[in-house]
Amino acid sequence: MPLKCAKCGKEKAELSIADGRVRLCEICFIDYYEKKVKETVEKYDMFKPDESLGIAVSGGKDSSSLLYCLRKIFPKLDITAIHINLGIKNYSDHCEMKVKELTDRLDVKLIIKRVEDQGFSIDGFKNTIYRRKICSPCGIIKRHLIDEMAIKAGVKVLATGHNLDDTVGTMLSAFFSEDFTQLVRLKPVLYPHHPLQTKKVKPLLRMTELEDYLYALYSELPIRNQSCPHSIGTQSRETKKLLERLSEGKPGFRYQVLNLFLKKLIPMIEDKLKQPDLTICKSCGFPSSSEVCAYCRRVSLVKSVIN
Amino acid sequence: MPLKCAKCGKEKAELSIADGRVRLCEICFIDYYEKKVKETVEKYDMFKPDESLGIAVSGGKDSSSLLYCLRKIFPKLDITAIHINLGIKNYSDHCEMKVKELTDRLDVKLIIKRVEDQGFSIDGFKNTIYRRKICSPCGIIKRHLIDEMAIKAGVKVLATGHNLDDTVGTMLSAFFSEDFTQLVRLKPVLYPHHPLQTKKVKPLLRMTELEDYLYALYSELPIRNQSCPHSIGTQSRETKKLLERLSEGKPGFRYQVLNLFLKKLIPMIEDKLKQPDLTICKSCGFPSSSEVCAYCRRVSLVKSVIN
Repeated sequence: MPLKCAKCGKEKAELSIADGRVRLCEICFIDYYEKKVKETVEKYDMFKPDESLGIAVSGGKDSSSLLYCLRKIFPKLDITAIHINLGIKNYSDHCEMKVKELTDRLDVKLIIKRVEDQGFSIDGFKNTIYRRKICSPCGIIKRHLIDEMAIKAGVKVLATGHNLDDTVGTMLSAFFSEDFTQLVRLKPVLYPHHPLQTKKVKPLLRMTELEDYLYALYSELPIRNQSCPHSIGTQSRETKKLLERLSEGKPGFRYQVLNLFLKKLIPMIEDKLKQPDLTICKSCGFPSSSEVCAYCRRVSLVKSVIN
Repeated sequence: MPLKCAKCGKEKAELSIADGRVRLCEICFIDYYEKKVKETVEKYDMFKPDESLGIAVSGGKDSSSLLYCLRKIFPKLDITAIHINLGIKNYSDHCEMKVKELTDRLDVKLIIKRVEDQGFSIDGFKNTIYRRKICSPCGIIKRHLIDEMAIKAGVKVLATGHNLDDTVGTMLSAFFSEDFTQLVRLKPVLYPHHPLQTKKVKPLLRMTELEDYLYALYSELPIRNQSCPHSIGTQSRETKKLLERLSEGKPGFRYQVLNLFLKKLIPMIEDKLKQPDLTICKSCGFPSSSEVCAYCRRVSLVKSVIN
């Protein structure tokens, strides 16, 4: 006899949540997922139900689930989906197509910026000192362009699809490499320090990667089915392996680490860490901790090599 | 042709140190080991070369190497070896014999206390709530008895054989279980807060478990060749596994974690952590953070069950 859902007691249990301890049917899982996202938004006071919200969407499972779920649970939100077409061959156009499909279906406003319109390409970093480690400059460029678009679109809050696995993995890796500035940036809410910054929130902070995937699957969302060609053997995969090793045989380990960092470690570090003096990048005019911001330095680097 | 020692360039290289990056012959290894211990003692100002020093010795590789090495590099030290016979069947008498052999050979004063003379036995904890997790009460009892003996013997400083692997493993495990009080106790030097406490030091803090073993082996020290019958599947073995998983393929990981905790994390925690109010145990009269100290509570527990 098949196992029944632990929540409704009627339908066949299809999957396990909470690190294998609870079995749910599809309908009850969707309900569980949406309630948990709503709770997270409310717990950290991420935004009001009728605020203007930008959502960074990549075409992947996390940000697609985020967009779909927030649209569903907060019907009065004024949502703008923000997408960066990174111009990566055999990858980015496919991602953009999936994003368009989803925003069309949800009738959500979508704004797109293309990296190639900025006069360079992400693929070009292959010919710089980054060689195969393109994720680092790509992340800097993506974040800057999204921030810029959010400001120009006039959204009050910007939401991103960082999940529990991403967050905890990055926490551990930043901790062990003593990058305390990076650690503090992993908080659920980051408040702006300058008019050209947006409040940033992570509503999927407590959802696992698998939960995001299942939510997208059960909600039949169009998501990309290709991996970024630059992601093979990169730091983020290393971080994932570290997390897997640590949580082996320990259900709940990721939640435990999240709480340890959010409640104990980050507050302690924030007390000690000097807030970097914010200045204005003399090239693009956006807030920066150095004379020329990280984005503009990467752009000038990639433009200086022959692609 | 066999590889030559990286230091003397003459002898055959017998082993690797510094996580596999340097190959040494036996003689140069012993020299490297003793220099590094001396540096550690001096770096943290653990004791003066002619001070009266208690050394806790168990019969194992770490504390035997510690005693032998300190005797050799600081010939003017006034050393008292302190041993607890835990009364564990098929184990403790063997350990005591090895300790006697070593102190006889070195002509070092040895004082011994037997747990059975205190009217209980470590094996008796099997019949308490601890069941198979005897390492926890055993550690508390051992520490208390050693502290008591050090005070009675009038030594200025008490040295223990904690190695790099022990220390880093316990650091990680205390960190992930949010036991910040335990973390702070892992510092290289603990200063007394009460006349019935001794300054405690860990001269082997930067030596790996393997290095302690090799030093004992090459110095032909008598060390126990039996494992404690209670140690199977215990927390400390779990901690060891955690450390192995984390340092897989990362030479230097243990040193990196040691530095992170000693230089960054522990100072931050100490700033925040309230020093527990020290009182006097109303049963034994030794300093304690509660009315009856952890030792006396364990002893009364084990005495209350039939063994």
